[in-house]
Formats: sequence, structure tokens, C-alpha cells
Amino acid sequence: MATATRRKKKAKKTRTPKMTYCWGATKTEGNATQKELLGGKGANLAEMTSIGLPVPPGFTIPTTMCEAYYKQGSRMPKGLGEATVKAIRRVEKETGKVFGSETNPLLVSVRSGAAISMPGMMDTVLNLGLTDAAVHGMIELTGNARFAWDAYRRLINMFGDVVMGMEHEDFEHEFDIVKKKHGVELDTELSAKGLSEVCDRYKKLYKRKVGSAFPQDPYKQLSHAVEAVFKSWNAGRAITYRQIEGIFGLKGTAVNVQAMVFGNMGKDSGTGVGFTRNPSTGKDVFFGEFLVDAQGEDVVAGIRTPKPFSQLKRWNNAIYNEILRYKKVLEKHYRDIQDIEFTIERGKLWMLQTRNGKRTAAAAVKIAVDLVKSRLITRDEALLRIPAGDLVQLLLPSFTTKSKQQVTKLAKGLPASPGAATGSLAFSANDAVVRAEAGEDVILVRKETSPEDIDGMQHAVGILTSTGGMTSHAAVVARGWGKCCVAGVSELHIDSKRKRVMIGGKVYDEKTILSIDGGTGEVMLGAVERHEPKLSNDFDTIMKWADQRRRMNVRTNADSPQDAKRARSFGAEGIGLTRTEHMFFEGDRILAMRQMILAHTLEKREEALARLMPYQCDDFIGIFTAMKGLPVTVRLLDPPLHEFLPHDSAGQRDVAHSLGIKPGEVKRRVEQLHELNPMLGHRGCRLAVTYPEILVMQVTAIVEAMIACKRKKIDARPEIMIPLVGTHEELAQLRELAAGTIKQVIKKERYKGKLNIPIGTMIEIPRAAIVADYIAEVADFFSFGTNDLTQLTYGYSRDDINSFLPHYIESGILERDPFQTIDIAGVGKLVSMGCEGGRSVNPKLKIGICGEHGGDPISIEFCNTVGLNYVSCSPFRVPTARLASAQAVIKQST
Amino acid sequence: MATATRRKKKAKKTRTPKMTYCWGATKTEGNATQKELLGGKGANLAEMTSIGLPVPPGFTIPTTMCEAYYKQGSRMPKGLGEATVKAIRRVEKETGKVFGSETNPLLVSVRSGAAISMPGMMDTVLNLGLTDAAVHGMIELTGNARFAWDAYRRLINMFGDVVMGMEHEDFEHEFDIVKKKHGVELDTELSAKGLSEVCDRYKKLYKRKVGSAFPQDPYKQLSHAVEAVFKSWNAGRAITYRQIEGIFGLKGTAVNVQAMVFGNMGKDSGTGVGFTRNPSTGKDVFFGEFLVDAQGEDVVAGIRTPKPFSQLKRWNNAIYNEILRYKKVLEKHYRDIQDIEFTIERGKLWMLQTRNGKRTAAAAVKIAVDLVKSRLITRDEALLRIPAGDLVQLLLPSFTTKSKQQVTKLAKGLPASPGAATGSLAFSANDAVVRAEAGEDVILVRKETSPEDIDGMQHAVGILTSTGGMTSHAAVVARGWGKCCVAGVSELHIDSKRKRVMIGGKVYDEKTILSIDGGTGEVMLGAVERHEPKLSNDFDTIMKWADQRRRMNVRTNADSPQDAKRARSFGAEGIGLTRTEHMFFEGDRILAMRQMILAHTLEKREEALARLMPYQCDDFIGIFTAMKGLPVTVRLLDPPLHEFLPHDSAGQRDVAHSLGIKPGEVKRRVEQLHELNPMLGHRGCRLAVTYPEILVMQVTAIVEAMIACKRKKIDARPEIMIPLVGTHEELAQLRELAAGTIKQVIKKERYKGKLNIPIGTMIEIPRAAIVADYIAEVADFFSFGTNDLTQLTYGYSRDDINSFLPHYIESGILERDPFQTIDIAGVGKLVSMGCEGGRSVNPKLKIGICGEHGGDPISIEFCNTVGLNYVSCSPFRVPTARLASAQAVIKQST
Repeated sequence: MATATRRKKKAKKTRTPKMTYCWGATKTEGNATQKELLGGKGANLAEMTSIGLPVPPGFTIPTTMCEAYYKQGSRMPKGLGEATVKAIRRVEKETGKVFGSETNPLLVSVRSGAAISMPGMMDTVLNLGLTDAAVHGMIELTGNARFAWDAYRRLINMFGDVVMGMEHEDFEHEFDIVKKKHGVELDTELSAKGLSEVCDRYKKLYKRKVGSAFPQDPYKQLSHAVEAVFKSWNAGRAITYRQIEGIFGLKGTAVNVQAMVFGNMGKDSGTGVGFTRNPSTGKDVFFGEFLVDAQGEDVVAGIRTPKPFSQLKRWNNAIYNEILRYKKVLEKHYRDIQDIEFTIERGKLWMLQTRNGKRTAAAAVKIAVDLVKSRLITRDEALLRIPAGDLVQLLLPSFTTKSKQQVTKLAKGLPASPGAATGSLAFSANDAVVRAEAGEDVILVRKETSPEDIDGMQHAVGILTSTGGMTSHAAVVARGWGKCCVAGVSELHIDSKRKRVMIGGKVYDEKTILSIDGGTGEVMLGAVERHEPKLSNDFDTIMKWADQRRRMNVRTNADSPQDAKRARSFGAEGIGLTRTEHMFFEGDRILAMRQMILAHTLEKREEALARLMPYQCDDFIGIFTAMKGLPVTVRLLDPPLHEFLPHDSAGQRDVAHSLGIKPGEVKRRVEQLHELNPMLGHRGCRLAVTYPEILVMQVTAIVEAMIACKRKKIDARPEIMIPLVGTHEELAQLRELAAGTIKQVIKKERYKGKLNIPIGTMIEIPRAAIVADYIAEVADFFSFGTNDLTQLTYGYSRDDINSFLPHYIESGILERDPFQTIDIAGVGKLVSMGCEGGRSVNPKLKIGICGEHGGDPISIEFCNTVGLNYVSCSPFRVPTARLASAQAVIKQST
Repeated sequence: MATATRRKKKAKKTRTPKMTYCWGATKTEGNATQKELLGGKGANLAEMTSIGLPVPPGFTIPTTMCEAYYKQGSRMPKGLGEATVKAIRRVEKETGKVFGSETNPLLVSVRSGAAISMPGMMDTVLNLGLTDAAVHGMIELTGNARFAWDAYRRLINMFGDVVMGMEHEDFEHEFDIVKKKHGVELDTELSAKGLSEVCDRYKKLYKRKVGSAFPQDPYKQLSHAVEAVFKSWNAGRAITYRQIEGIFGLKGTAVNVQAMVFGNMGKDSGTGVGFTRNPSTGKDVFFGEFLVDAQGEDVVAGIRTPKPFSQLKRWNNAIYNEILRYKKVLEKHYRDIQDIEFTIERGKLWMLQTRNGKRTAAAAVKIAVDLVKSRLITRDEALLRIPAGDLVQLLLPSFTTKSKQQVTKLAKGLPASPGAATGSLAFSANDAVVRAEAGEDVILVRKETSPEDIDGMQHAVGILTSTGGMTSHAAVVARGWGKCCVAGVSELHIDSKRKRVMIGGKVYDEKTILSIDGGTGEVMLGAVERHEPKLSNDFDTIMKWADQRRRMNVRTNADSPQDAKRARSFGAEGIGLTRTEHMFFEGDRILAMRQMILAHTLEKREEALARLMPYQCDDFIGIFTAMKGLPVTVRLLDPPLHEFLPHDSAGQRDVAHSLGIKPGEVKRRVEQLHELNPMLGHRGCRLAVTYPEILVMQVTAIVEAMIACKRKKIDARPEIMIPLVGTHEELAQLRELAAGTIKQVIKKERYKGKLNIPIGTMIEIPRAAIVADYIAEVADFFSFGTNDLTQLTYGYSRDDINSFLPHYIESGILERDPFQTIDIAGVGKLVSMGCEGGRSVNPKLKIGICGEHGGDPISIEFCNTVGLNYVSCSPFRVPTARLASAQAVIKQST
């Protein structure tokens, strides 16, 4: 058998591979499925030709030839020259022109095109085939000497620059000399004669730099250009790009050679680009621009202002109708909005490109629904068409593009929480509160935020920080509220004491008005006009379809009745995470909290906790009411106690004063609570183990709130979540304490009904995932806290990661920020171990996720794969999560 | 089949279980293998009887009866009363006495005894069977009224106290009244009459408190006592003890009823305890003490001073010889040194207890070797007999017990690094260096130590810290050096500025002499006499046997030639971990290091690194030379850079001054490098990724050192270890950089030979263990860094854990400190995943461990199970590791 295989291989090797794939009116050899072989561009040109669109004929040299080129030590594959000549002959036949002809010359473009679009590779050489002889043919053919000479000088420039590696500036310099000589300023003012002089100078320059004359054999031009495309595949930039994007296993690039058509051949010529529907709103109206007597690059360059597509009707009604006909053909064929390029050469329409059009989230939603209505796609396809992560845009205000173009951009940071905010600057949480309450719109500007800033963050219209990443405190809290936040703007030098900030050497004080764009990270000077969000019927339709398709529930992370209500309006089916620590910062509560922390005896601690209890109870009643009928997972106190004490001496003096103790005592306690690595310190359930009275107070508040609701016929459904569990025993002991407390409260309240309060834990410590089979014995549910789980699994502190994360992503060590999209190989493995372990002892274990990943589409797909029951995310990500959950089901069912 | 099983079960149930197991000269029913059924004590008494030793006869009520008692809702099993009567009859026959007799009464003791010795359960009731009638029989039998009445009052007291839950003080009170009345002070001065009065008062007290008269039926006494033993099984303290120790699945406690014998019946009676060999040195000489005319409790209580066993010969030569005969019988039977109790009643020897004797490490070694010589045990058994962890004691000085008893103990901390040190106090590293160099013995006293203190730690004779645990910086470094360290002494209040420390309200300054015991954690005032260590031939024998048996190699963690040499003398077969960061603190080096950190450009950094290079190279030459022929794993720079900069402004000013820059610049850099969670920060290979020049310098130094050695014919075998790797890409990129550097150095040095330098990584990030199959593709070896792996797997910061760890261990959440003994379920799971993953792609992957666990016997056994190639530990733990590795093989082969 081994011999047989070898023989087979040998047979394969000796068969000559196909070296060109042509397309044209008379014959087309490729199609859209052959991207690997023909590259994206080539496959698509063949496809367009096949479905009857007028495409200038040409051929593709497949990626296998590029592979062969490198296999043979950067030598052109044998026979490729002959094959190319043959392919050109076919193009000559299709066009009726002749390559290099002195009377009727065929010009071609040469472009690279890999299976995946890839910047860094050779782009384009146009007008190839022009020579000293052919330029005269061109003049004869077009009757336009200026046009012919201009085309020739462009070819020499591009060929020298792109194929031969000459400097573009050197060409510019020659051009300038001629312009000066002719006394003109603009390129377009130069006469045919001037341009022919430019060609002469260019050719001399070429010879000087390259060492040989500009090739007058068009086939030589072509073979040089093809080799240049092959070489560009392994140029430094292209390699780096592939490494960063993790693109491996491609054979190489294809080369596309296509007959040139010209939109600049006079008043009956033109060129345009367009979308088959409005890419911004999704409206089913052709949306494009065109220019008469111009080339494609003129539209892109923006030198002349193009006209809207509607005016094309007046200019050439037939062409107008033809394009609208092709719109239908294309949409029917590609079953999506198309982004096209076209050229009219002396009254004949040529289609140069079509591809699926980029669109806004709003357009994506409308187009998807419309395409289903026209039966072009199924509902499943419609759901897959919408980038789930973009839905957040629809729920938040945004700056108008026009207005943004008119303001000064000062700096750029991380787009930490989408939205658009304009306000004057507040440099402390307290200032923000005071000024906001006086009616001012303020942006809170901080180095980084901490739980002490919560009140100020809430009052501000936006948050701006100079350090901290996408999952910093500011970012996480802001996203939870749907509040605009730009984080980690390293150009900011904040001087909180003097209430000013330096950006790019200029100082801005608290009167300055800034606008921040949380979707892009931009920081702009002055006010910028905004759109307010409005949800369409199409949005509702998509959400309805998604809900029908998804398996996982979608909950939200919310700490207040307002957030809970909003999330519910976005479709949240419960709360997956209510953090209770934020509740201790408001107003008087913080004082009682501090009293508790500073107490020396259990009695004093219980006294302080008793003062906190009614607040907690009220908080819970509010949230349970907002979420009536739906589960609410309450996480018990998580952060280390020192987060509740001020770290500066002034603040410590204040606390001492309010509590009637000595400042030294506060200072000592702060020092005692100080930790070298608070993330790994005395927090989470470790607090409940050492201070069980805190747990007792919180559970009491939950049960009392539940009973109060029940008595008002409100269907409260709390679940108690114990954080940071790493061992079975922690949860077993705390569960017992919680269950005992529940019983006591029921007894004390003489409540007669039955209260079902599940008790579970966050799985956020690697060990918990590993020993999940033990922990599940005493858990009613698991909720993966993948923020902390990621920190511990990688050994990365979210707060400190910025010192190396950018470098890590740049150098390809990390594909992406693991705090934004779950690391499937590492953290994901622990999640699946946790699920398997947990369900092995408790098959009905309810499992969810409540980290940042709960709102990230890729992570949500992973959650669906491992079989979670729900994901929980910030309110504004709920629609995203609903859609992404449906997409996961659809992808996994195919 | 189901029916058959049920029938079988029913059959089992109906068979009457055996309710008593007797032992005695005429019949013995149990043996040493039946601990589960008879408890440890009962099984052993039966065993001793069987091998012909004179044991007072008795019987055991098995654990199954206790189980039945609870199964039937705390009711005495049916038939147990009758069975007990029958068993007593047998004891009467054996002793010729009668239970409750007025002329010749049998007295018995009643004791609990579970399969595992368990504090918190009922201990003992003695003299049971005495009644108003029997006390007269006792007088008749012994002719000693005082003795009889004393026995009776002891019974009433114990019975009331232990069985009926009365207060011992109430009895004391009655006794005092009688003593007062008779005008005596000591109990022993009271006459028989007085004691009979005490009995009367006790009986009245009993009736008053219990509500019924003291039982005059001896069988009633017995049945009450048996039930009390059953009840004590589920007393709070016993339950807690079982929970903490994780003792589950026991049926209950057994009850041992045994005929009393009395050592206090006159000058021909006595009692003693002893070891069959010297438990301190292991010498094969009976080692014991005895008292004439006394009861066992008198020896223990220490009221009278017992005589050495050698004097027993003079008192009663026959008994003396009999005991020496039993020594041989017992050692031959139990094949180990025995710890025995005996009583002589009127010239007759009775053996009351035997158990394996506790011994020092030195004795354990000698005894094990001697027992092999006398062919009582095999070499494997000898190896298993020695607690591997205790071997460290043999390598270090220790305080003499006698001298320790004479000094004031000031405080107790954690026994962080064994040894014994006496010196005056130094409150800064600098002071320690200066004073030590002036010839003074100093103990360095610090809140906690940091790498900046290294120099001072090295110069001090011992280290004392007020915070930090068993794996704090001070502890780890001290253990590495075999330097005495007591850590985490929370009673210390250190005032470094004023150079004094407060302990228990008293202030001690730098002139104070303290002694610290690193094996116990004691802090003592003044100087204490010391033993210096001396290794015996027996030690060498044991090590030789261990080496023949073990599979794993044992390496050491050493950062200097001295440590390397010492470890080699203890048998280390290479270095598993050379930390390079310590090397940057000495003398001028720290300045160059700081210059590197403070540099703004790559050039300046490289300049500073070039200054460090020769130092590094010399360090490596020293270590490679000390370890010639053996592998030396060098870990590249690991700690975050801020550890090398001073954090106080005075220090920062000094640095600025030495480097000729502004103090503000130093301060800014320190602030910039500040991290919230340095453990999870910019360190390990993350430094090498962002500052590749550091890696290049270190690798260059390694290769140059290797070449220098080779040229001197020294067989240097470095291995390069890249720390904190979490992704395949990190190691791949850094490996490439290191390999490239190696090549360059070889070229630059024009070295012609071949250099084989394996490149591997520490597996210390959970993710690394999870994706080990990817990482192993680019690793020649793995070394598990289980210190960090434990921190991350549990989410515990070693530096901060003391705020909750003691509580965690106390409440049974953790069985033991996971930094000392590996957590097999969690961290261990990652280790085995890492091994499996790594070997799945690279079957020859060399795998070791270099965390603290590498010197811990339980952890070493685990390492052997998962198939590691070597363990690496601090030099003084090398013999421990050699022995433990052998023990692991032996245990796993049986």
C-alpha cells in the first residue's frame, strides 16, 4: 500500500497544474467558491462574470503558482510565461484589442489577491501594456493625446514605484520641474505635450535608478509585475500581518490580470461606487456616487466632489436602469447588500467589483429583516448577519459624524463604555456630585476610579481616566450603567489638586468643555452634536427571532432598581449578579460600614451591621420588585475591607472625627488591613468565614426583603451567591450558616409560606473549577466569575496589565485581550472542567456566567458550547447577548 | 437477586453480634489487627496478653455496640447487660476476686478506646466496683484502711465528675472541709478516718447534685460508666476533633473494662514507665523511671521524683530481669522500640500498656539501622520508620532541653527555618552587616524582609519577623541557607527608627540578647546553650539505602557557590533552581541594576546591563564550578523591577545622587512601576518580552561562564529556565531569542566545541499547566514552581494569607497550609495535567519541581506518583528529599 501511495503522489506531481483561470463573455473558468485557489478578488470577478454582469475580461494566476515560486527558490514557475501569453490572447479576443499594439492597444491592470484580504501586499499596477509604441496607438484609439500620455506617465510611475521599488517622491520631483517649466500649478492643467515630457523624464529617471530602460515589451512588463506580486507575499509587512492575525496555511497570493476600462474618456464616460441599499439606515434604495469623465481613484481621492447616484438618471437613463437591474441580480445572487464599483467607458457600463457591503448596526438589522421579507435569506441567516456586539450602538446616544469632523481631537484612549458625552470637567467625585446637582453636565476625570468614586461616577455624564484598561473599575461600572467612558488615555496628565489636566502640552481646567466618544475612545474639545437612540420595529423583530432560537437564558448584572428595570426593558430574564458592596458607599451607610470595620469586638460589629441592615433590606426590596417573577442572584460582600476606608490622612481624620475615635486608630486599622496583593487577599467568602456576622446581616436583609415583597404579593426570587469559594468546606460551612439564618428570620417574622432561596457560588478561583465535583455537592448553582478566573489563570492583574498587554498583543503573544473575550484554551478549559465536574455530582446544577465575558459574542458562543444555562451581562449588552446566544445555537446546529 | 440480597441482610441482622471480647491468662479473644472493632487500646491489651505478657485481665465492649447504641436512639443495646455480667464473671475467675464482694472485691477500670486515639472522649474511671460493702472487703483484703477509703473517695469523685457530669471543684470543697477539721494541709496527711468522712460527704454531695444515691450495685456503676463512654463519642469536643482531623467512617468507641492492680499497696509495690531503647539517642538500653508504693498517675503528675530504671535492679532484681525479658519479647513482636507502662502489686509485675515509642530524628535513624542489623526489620521498613522531615534537625544546631527550661520565653512565632541562634538585635540590614563585620552575633529583627535585606540576612545569625508566614521571603531565604528564622511573631511591635522592640509590654533595645528556636518558633530572653550537629554513620547508612531505592533525582535550590557546595555535600545531584535576582543586590551591582531600570533608552539600558554582565558571569562560573558534572538550572530574572528600587524618599535621594539624576525622576519611575498586585504584574518572562536586552545579557553571561569553565576543563552543565510562562508564544519567542544569543556568544568567543544548553520553563501559572501540551513543543524541560502555582490556584497571596489562614486551619476549611504541603486535589491536579500534557507531545520532557514543596515528604510522594524526574529543595532539605523519595517508591510498590 505504501508503494501505491508513493506512486499516486508521483502521478500527482507530474500532472501539469493549471496556470491561469480566465473570465470573460465567452468563457469563465473560476467561481466564488475557489477563493483558496484564486484569491477573493479573482474568484469574485469570475463569479460576477458567470452571472452575466459586464466585467472587463481577464484572468487569474492562481495561488499555487505563488507557492511554486517560493518552492523553487523564488524562481518563476516553468511554463507560466507561455500560459500568460495564451491567457492574454484570450483577453485580446474578448476585447478586440492587442497587447502592445501601435493602433489598438490592450491595457491591463495587475493586482494581488489572497484568499483573505491582506494589507501589506502589492496593490495595483494600472495601464500595463503601454509602451512608446502603444501610447501612440492609444492616442489613435481614443483621439485624446493628453489622456494617452497621462496614462503612460502613470504606468511608469506605478511600475517604477510598486514593481521596481523606486521612490515616489523622485517621480513627483520630475513632474514638478515640468509643471514649473510650463508655468502651471495643478497636474490637470498640464497639456499633452507637457505630459509627454513628463514621460521622457520618468523614463530617464527609471533608467538611472533601475539600471535598465523602462521595458518596451508589454509581456516583460507583465512578467515583472507578476513576480512583484509574488514577492510582496513575503514582504515584511505582509508576514507581520499574517502573524498578528494568526493567518496560517495559505499557499500564497493569486495575481489578477484584467483589461483596463476608462471612465475618463470624455463626457460619455464616468465612474462610480455604491451600495445596493443605504449602508447607514438599511433603507432599500441604491446609495452611491459618480463622477463624469473620471477614473475610480478620483472618486476615492476626493479631489472632485462626486454627484449622488440619483443624478445618474438624468445623465444616462439607460445606464441608470442597467445598474438598478444589476442591483437586483447581485442581491439575489449574493443574498446581501453589495458594495460595487463601476465604470462607464464611452457609454458602456462595466462592473469592476462587488462585495458584501459594510453597514451600521441599524442598517444590519433593517437589511436582515428586509431580506427575510423578500425571502432571500432565512431567519437563521438573518440572525447570523448581524454583528451581535454592535447592537449596543443602537441603545446609546452617538455623535453625528458631521459634527465630529468639525472639532479638535485632543487624544485617544480605550473605548471602555460606548455612548457619547459632553460636559465640563470634574476632578473629584465630590465635585462631580455637587456640580451635577447644581444642574451642570460634568465629565469625571480621574487617574483611575475606585469604589469611593461611585457616587461621582453616577452623577457624571461621562467618565475619563488616564490609566486602566477595558476591564478597569471605571470601565466595568460604566458599562453596567450604559454610561459613556473613555479609559486609559495615557496622554492625560491629571493634577487633581489644582483641578486641571494637561493634554499634549496644553492645560485644561474645570471650565473646559470636552466631548468623549465611548465607542471610539476619542477625546474632543468642545461640544459635539448627538443622535439620541430610538429602537425600530425591525430591532424588535430580530430580538423576537433570536429569543425563539436561543437555548441559554440572558440575565443582567445590576445593583440598583433603575438598572434592573432598564435591563428588563432590554429583555433580561433575571439578574445574574447583584453586587452588594456598592450599596455600602451611599450617604450615611459608609459611616456604619466603617464603624463595623473599625470595631474591636463582635458586639460592636454587630451593632454597626444592625444599622446597615435596613438599608440593605430596602435595596433588596427595590431590586426584587423591579425583577418580580424573575431570579435575582445576590452576591454577598466581596471586596477587601480596606476598600471602604480612606487611605489619605485627611480622610482618616474625618472618619475618626465622625466616629469619635482617635485618628491613629483609623490609621492603624488601615495599615493592618493593607495587603501586598489585595486581589489575592482577605476578601470574598474569606470575609464571611472570619466575620460570619456580615453574612448573617446580609442574608437576614435578603430574607426580610423577600418576606416583605411576598406580603405585598410581589414574587421575589432571590438566590444567594457566595463569592471566591476555593474549597468544598468554605461553601459547606457558609451554606449552613446562611440556611440557619434563613430559618431564623422566617421564624422571627412568623412567615407561614414557603421560601425557596437557592444558595450557590461563583466559580472564579481556578481551584474551584478543578474541584467543582466536590463543591457542587453543596451548591444549588454555579456562576462563573471569569474576570477573576482570567486574572488567576493567567496570573494577570487587570489593574496592572497595561504595562505589558499592548506589547503582548502587538507581538502576537496574545491574540486579543483575554479580559474581553474568553481564552478558550486556558480559562475556557477550566470553565468546561467546572461544568463537567459540577454536573457529574449534580446533573441539575444551574450554571451561568457573570463576568465581562457574558456580554461578548465569541465568549457567549463558547458558553453555549459548554452547556451553560445562562449568561449575565451589563444591561446594555442584554440584546447583544440574546442575539449572540441565538447565533451560537444556529452555528452549532450547522 | 434483589430478594436474595435482602434475605441475606436480614439474616445478618438477626445473628446476635458478639458483645464482649475478653483477654486474660486463660482465654483471649481479640488481637492487634482488630483496631476497628476493639479500638486501639483494647486490641493492644489482647495482643500483649496473647504473647504471654502478664496483663491484668479484662474485656472490651466493641465499637459495634456504640454504633448500636446510637442506632437505637441512645439506648443500651439489648443483651449487653447480660453479656457484661458474663464477662465480669470471667475476670472474677481469672483474678479469684468477686465484683462487689465484702471480703475479696474485684475493682475494675473503665476506659474509652476508638480505632484512632482521640482527645475529647471520656478518659478513665478507676476503682469501679467499690461500694460501702466492698470498701470493707478491700480493707480486709489489703489490711490497709487508708488505702481502701482513699480508693473509694477517688471512685465517687471520678464517677460523679466523669460519668454524672458533676463539678470537680464541689468535691474539692468537701475535701477541704474535712482537711480543715482534721487540721491537715496535704491530702496525704489525712487519716483513714478522715478519708471515710470524705467518702460520706462525697456521697451526700452526689445525692444532692445527681438526685439519687451513689449506686451501691457495682453492675449499675459499670453500666452507667459504659453508657457514659458511649455518650462521650458524640460530645461536642470529640465531634469537632473528628471534623478537624477529617476522621470519618468510624463506628464509635469501644469500652475497655480491666481488673485494677495497685502499685501503692506498700513497699513491695510500685509503678513505672519506660522505653525499650533510649528515645533521644536510640542507644539500645532500657530507658525508664519508677516509683515505689505509687500509682501510675503519680509518675505522670510529677509530685514525687521517680528513680531511674537502673535502680530497680537493687530494689527487686527479679522484676528488673523480667522487664528486660519483656523488652526483648515486645521488640521482637512489635519490631520497634516500645513505650511501656507497668505496675508491681505486692511483688507481682503487671504490664499495663505498650505502644511504639516516640523518638528524636537521631534516635529514629539509629534504631532503624540497629533493627535491620538484628534482622528484626527490612531495609525498606527501616526507611519507612524515619520521618523524613525530621532529618533537617540532624543538620542544624539545636538548644539543649535543659538550658531551654531555664530561660524566659517571651513569645512564640512560626518555626520558619530550623536551627538555634543567639545574638543581640539589629533593626536594619545595614546595622546587621556593620555589627556582624565587627564580630558581633546579631539577630535581624524586621517586620518582614524584602530582597533589599539580603545582605543583612546573610550577616545575621538568625532572623526574626513580626509578620509573614512559613513561605514569606524571610522564611524561604533562611531555609535556603539553613539559617535559623522565626517568622510572624505577632506579639512583636518593632520600632525600627528608635531601634527597639516591644514584646508583651516590655521594651528591648539593640543590646538585648535573644535566643530564637527555628524548630519551635520560640523567642527566649538571654543566651541558651546549644548542641552542634554531627552526622553519624547510621545517617550515612540510611542515606545510602535511600539512594538505592529512590527513582527521582534530588536537586537543590541554590544561588551561590557556598550553598551549592553545601547542598552537594548533603547529596544534591544538581541545582534545580538558581535565582538570579539575589545576585543583583550585592555591593555595586545594585547601582548598575538601578541605572538599567531608570534608563530612558535601550542604549542606556544596554550600557548598564553591560556593567552587570561580568558580575553575573563570575557568579555563574562559581556555581558551575561547585556543581561541575551536574546540571544547574538558571532561572532568568523574575521579580518586578520595582523591587530593586528604594520606596522611601531618603533612599530615592541616595539613588538619584549616585546616578547623577534628579530625585523626582527616581520617584516618578517608582510610581510608574507601582503595581496594585505585584504578584500578578510585570515580572517573570513578561520582563524579558518587554526588555529583551535583560534576557540577552543573562544568557550571554551563562554562555560565557560555561565557555570559561569548559576552557578550564570544568564540566559546566547550565540549563536556562524562563519563568512565569503562560502561553506557548511567550516561550517560543524567548526561546528563539535565547538560542540566537547562545549562537552569537559561541561565535564571538570562537568556541569550537559543542555546547548543549537545554531551554525550559517554570510551570507556575495555572494556564501553563492547562496548555502544557502546547508549551512543551518549545520546552526541553518543565519545572513546577508550586509556590506561585499555589498562590494562583487558590487565589491566596502568600504575603497576606496570615489574616485568614490560621482561622481556615482552625475551622477545618484547610487541612494544612497549602504552601507547605501540596494541595493534591487542586494544585496537584494541575501538576498532573501539566505532566500529561507535556509528555503527550514530548515523551522525553524532563520534569521537576522547585517550589517549597520539593522538600516536603507528602508532596514528594505525590511528585513520585505523577512521575516527576526530580525534586529540588533547599540544601538542608536534601537528605529529607532523598529519604522521602525512597519512601515514596517503597509505599507505591506495596
